[in-house]
Amino acid sequence: MLYFDGLNCSPFEWDVPDQRPALLKLREGGVGGFISTLAWYEGAVETMDKIVKWRWMAEDNSDLVALATTSDEIREIAASGRTAIVLGSQNISFLENRLGFVELFAEMGMRVGQLTYNIQSDIGGSCYEPTDSGLSRFGRAVVAEMNRCGMVVDLSHVGDRTSRDAIDASDAPVAITHANPYSLAPHARNKPDEVLDALKANHGILGLATYRNIVGEHTTPAAWADMVAWTVDRIGIDHVAVGTDFDQTGGERALTWMRQGRWAKERQYGAGSSNNPAPAAKLDWITGPQDFPHIEQALRDHGFSDDEVALIMGENWMRFFDRTTRS
Amino acid sequence: MLYFDGLNCSPFEWDVPDQRPALLKLREGGVGGFISTLAWYEGAVETMDKIVKWRWMAEDNSDLVALATTSDEIREIAASGRTAIVLGSQNISFLENRLGFVELFAEMGMRVGQLTYNIQSDIGGSCYEPTDSGLSRFGRAVVAEMNRCGMVVDLSHVGDRTSRDAIDASDAPVAITHANPYSLAPHARNKPDEVLDALKANHGILGLATYRNIVGEHTTPAAWADMVAWTVDRIGIDHVAVGTDFDQTGGERALTWMRQGRWAKERQYGAGSSNNPAPAAKLDWITGPQDFPHIEQALRDHGFSDDEVALIMGENWMRFFDRTTRS
Repeated sequence: MLYFDGLNCSPFEWDVPDQRPALLKLREGGVGGFISTLAWYEGAVETMDKIVKWRWMAEDNSDLVALATTSDEIREIAASGRTAIVLGSQNISFLENRLGFVELFAEMGMRVGQLTYNIQSDIGGSCYEPTDSGLSRFGRAVVAEMNRCGMVVDLSHVGDRTSRDAIDASDAPVAITHANPYSLAPHARNKPDEVLDALKANHGILGLATYRNIVGEHTTPAAWADMVAWTVDRIGIDHVAVGTDFDQTGGERALTWMRQGRWAKERQYGAGSSNNPAPAAKLDWITGPQDFPHIEQALRDHGFSDDEVALIMGENWMRFFDRTTRS
Repeated sequence: MLYFDGLNCSPFEWDVPDQRPALLKLREGGVGGFISTLAWYEGAVETMDKIVKWRWMAEDNSDLVALATTSDEIREIAASGRTAIVLGSQNISFLENRLGFVELFAEMGMRVGQLTYNIQSDIGGSCYEPTDSGLSRFGRAVVAEMNRCGMVVDLSHVGDRTSRDAIDASDAPVAITHANPYSLAPHARNKPDEVLDALKANHGILGLATYRNIVGEHTTPAAWADMVAWTVDRIGIDHVAVGTDFDQTGGERALTWMRQGRWAKERQYGAGSSNNPAPAAKLDWITGPQDFPHIEQALRDHGFSDDEVALIMGENWMRFFDRTTRS
């Protein structure tokens, strides 16, 4: 069965220590592919540096991983016993206010771009913004250009109003690569029903996360599978998938960068809080990609059919990429 | 007959005034294609801005021009009555010291890169440097990477020692897109016999220029054709082509940027001098691309055969691209 993870945010760049043991855990878990995170706040040149470092890493670990841009490439790489990496970014800060850079970064292999990360940008508002501006005029042009260039619009950290605007503006299906339903796990990072319903109407996809800070009470395999089942009931089996939000190698220094980049000196907590500042503990049954079979088992134990399990574990992502990306 | 110009350095970016009349002159002269100049001293982001602006220009003038990366595309565009633009750069300053950016810029369409412009760089020495360092260690890696990625190595403004080093280092044929033989027209920009002989051995190509400052006494059609004939005798018919060095739209402001970028405040004269500071007057028989048929006529009047004229006017460039570039 093809396992695909809608988000693994580990910084697997060429010069990051302990990256090969982490890659081996992807193989241990039989993960056929994942969407990566290259940029959080990085500009164009910094992001290009990351693209080069991911390529060099893939070259040096070609027995374990390879870069992919389409579902055919993902399937081929997974079938060869390796893990396909779809280059993505949790912020399209690399555009540096330039519409034309969407096409250039698509040509460099970037296939997924989140419209905003944790802070407001020239594109729109984030999920943590007191007032969400909605999609800006520039943002509207960017969404159209992403559609044209086959770069997936990701709304995971995007504010609700900007998310709805982006879904309205997008001709292509959009992704929420890693988030959960707000109705079940009330957290600013999670998605209210109206966004989920709009996602369904857009033929989009939601990768449900196992990240401790945003699962609410759904911490056991059975409770997490209940959340999957609720989401399937709400938006349909074709729109539900997995996006764990694993960070295998980043650690505290990377967490600080994720949370505050260069935009704040005062400590920021991201999806945590001042009472919960540390990297979140992993759920005990899913501590890393090596535990991916436990997700499959949880879904089977819940009573999902073979076909349904296959869709949720990976096939829905493949069908989604067929509708959105190109080589 | 296919006409191809090894260098037209006009800044035809989308936001440059009077660009459409200049493009019409390319059509008037029946020019089927040319190598452009995007960067002189520009860094990565500035050069990407230029790539976008050339694309937007081509989109807005798609009845006259189209971008091309291979000889097949050039032939197809020329056959449609338009002019093919091969994106090139007179300085690979866009690398910003990064080996991996060769591949990224190749993916963005850059097909020709001059190793240095008028000043020394991290790659090597220019033709105006009092001491030419030769190809640096980084430069050696860049040449290998350009070979791998199908980006043509251009040596027109490169110092003689760096040029010979680069030819030695290059597995692929290299180009001197726009220069003349030093033996006939002694000027720092022109190429001594040993560089021409090395170019021949490398199966490279030389585009002979009509730029007033570097033709020496070869100012008439007959004298210019004599220079072509001398070069053919020296390095063989297969290695000789045209590279006019026309600037149709740049004017004085662009000339100042070309000559001194940001590296000098004191006035620099490029291929001119303090006695000859202004933009060079055009040769009276070849004042712009609309006069390309006059080049053909000069070659015919000299006594070159039909086949020889076709090779020099464009076919040698097509064969060269077949050996060096890819789509």
